[in-house]
Amino acid sequence: MSQQSIKVGSAPEVQYLLRIGDSCLILAQRISEWCGHAPILEEDIALSNIALDLIGQARAVLTHAAKLDGQGHDEDQLAFLRDERQYLNPVLMELPRGDFAFTQLRNFGVASWLLLLWRRLEQSSDPEVAAIAGKAVKEAAYHQQHSADWVVRLGDGTEDSAQRMKSALATLWPYFNELFDADAVDAAAAAQGLGPAWSDLKEDWRTAFAEVLEEAQLTVPKDSGFRSEGRLGMHGEHMGHLLATLQYLQRAYPGGKW
Amino acid sequence: MSQQSIKVGSAPEVQYLLRIGDSCLILAQRISEWCGHAPILEEDIALSNIALDLIGQARAVLTHAAKLDGQGHDEDQLAFLRDERQYLNPVLMELPRGDFAFTQLRNFGVASWLLLLWRRLEQSSDPEVAAIAGKAVKEAAYHQQHSADWVVRLGDGTEDSAQRMKSALATLWPYFNELFDADAVDAAAAAQGLGPAWSDLKEDWRTAFAEVLEEAQLTVPKDSGFRSEGRLGMHGEHMGHLLATLQYLQRAYPGGKW
Repeated sequence: MSQQSIKVGSAPEVQYLLRIGDSCLILAQRISEWCGHAPILEEDIALSNIALDLIGQARAVLTHAAKLDGQGHDEDQLAFLRDERQYLNPVLMELPRGDFAFTQLRNFGVASWLLLLWRRLEQSSDPEVAAIAGKAVKEAAYHQQHSADWVVRLGDGTEDSAQRMKSALATLWPYFNELFDADAVDAAAAAQGLGPAWSDLKEDWRTAFAEVLEEAQLTVPKDSGFRSEGRLGMHGEHMGHLLATLQYLQRAYPGGKW
Repeated sequence: MSQQSIKVGSAPEVQYLLRIGDSCLILAQRISEWCGHAPILEEDIALSNIALDLIGQARAVLTHAAKLDGQGHDEDQLAFLRDERQYLNPVLMELPRGDFAFTQLRNFGVASWLLLLWRRLEQSSDPEVAAIAGKAVKEAAYHQQHSADWVVRLGDGTEDSAQRMKSALATLWPYFNELFDADAVDAAAAAQGLGPAWSDLKEDWRTAFAEVLEEAQLTVPKDSGFRSEGRLGMHGEHMGHLLATLQYLQRAYPGGKW
């Protein structure tokens, strides 16, 4: 395995899968920052396990994306040797981990979205994608439940915890938009039956999100016109630092194996 | 230039110079994090210039260390392609940038130390080292004055700024110890006239430090038994992340030149 940066092709099915695989990978990297730092031991282990689940999902999706891309890359090369613009996760995933409230609220929003997505992907015309989704859907259901519990506990908790949850919501809300934007990649995937247009998931997601927010005594914010474009490779200032950490081992020890 | 990690030899003169060059390099990396983020424009430029001065000093010292090491490396390889344990800066330099008070107090402590060190190195038996010191001593004098002004202004400032300075002092104080520890590398450098044993600088540093602290209405803390050992390559948890960022470009684009 060379240490040189690689690029993937522009086929819509590859791009569609990278958006999913990269979402799992980049969020996992952020969540794993809690390892050894979470407020209670049980949550330290829970967050680490959620990160591991997401890495497993990323690995499966990136392996398949590499196969469809047909350039002979493997999932490790896709994970560690692309340059920043080649990562297609929504910017939401790369935002700094924030405090515990921020972490749980983002996890809840993403898990709710992934749960809807994996359910639809179980019906994918690509049997490999359907198989990945069949496994992932159970994990996402647990991730959603776990984070929803925390959102309620903190939102409907002390004055401080409620304030932190409100602050997290204000920061995160504009970034959720990107999960439901429609574009040509999305349309092509839907047309060939690979998976749903992400915009199709919006209504169900909003319903699930609003229900938990209500229980948490939080108010769904108003929509702003803000749109992030991580799915097009346009990332924020934090992505470069995240990748420097994520890629360090493969960059410093090219082709290194355990 | 290969992207493979490199090692330097164990000759005391090389180790001695790396301790100095790495101190300049790693502190410069931390200070440069303020670029675009400092509280006022003038200070943004001042901190960036201080970082550039330190990088210039690092470059000169590492170039000479590489020559003495005799393995055909250049200063860029030494700066970007060593692994963590091969960096010999005191842990003080790698501590996260902290707030503005922390930054200025560390800068003051380090500049005071470097000023004493460069002055002695002007008398080095190695004419190349003496020449580097002759230029650096003027820069260090400015760095010391600039940061001393801030230490006084903040320490003897508002309630909040004084509290931040006290907190910075409590955190930093134990890490200053490492600047004055004696060991075999140090003794060998002193014996051959390359430069002073760092322990020789302790008394003058303490006097200079205490004077400014007094003017800043701050109290010199009591000594703890704590000793960091960055000069032996034993770094803290923040060093790996700093290096991931510092080395990213050379690791991702091996041998890349401007």
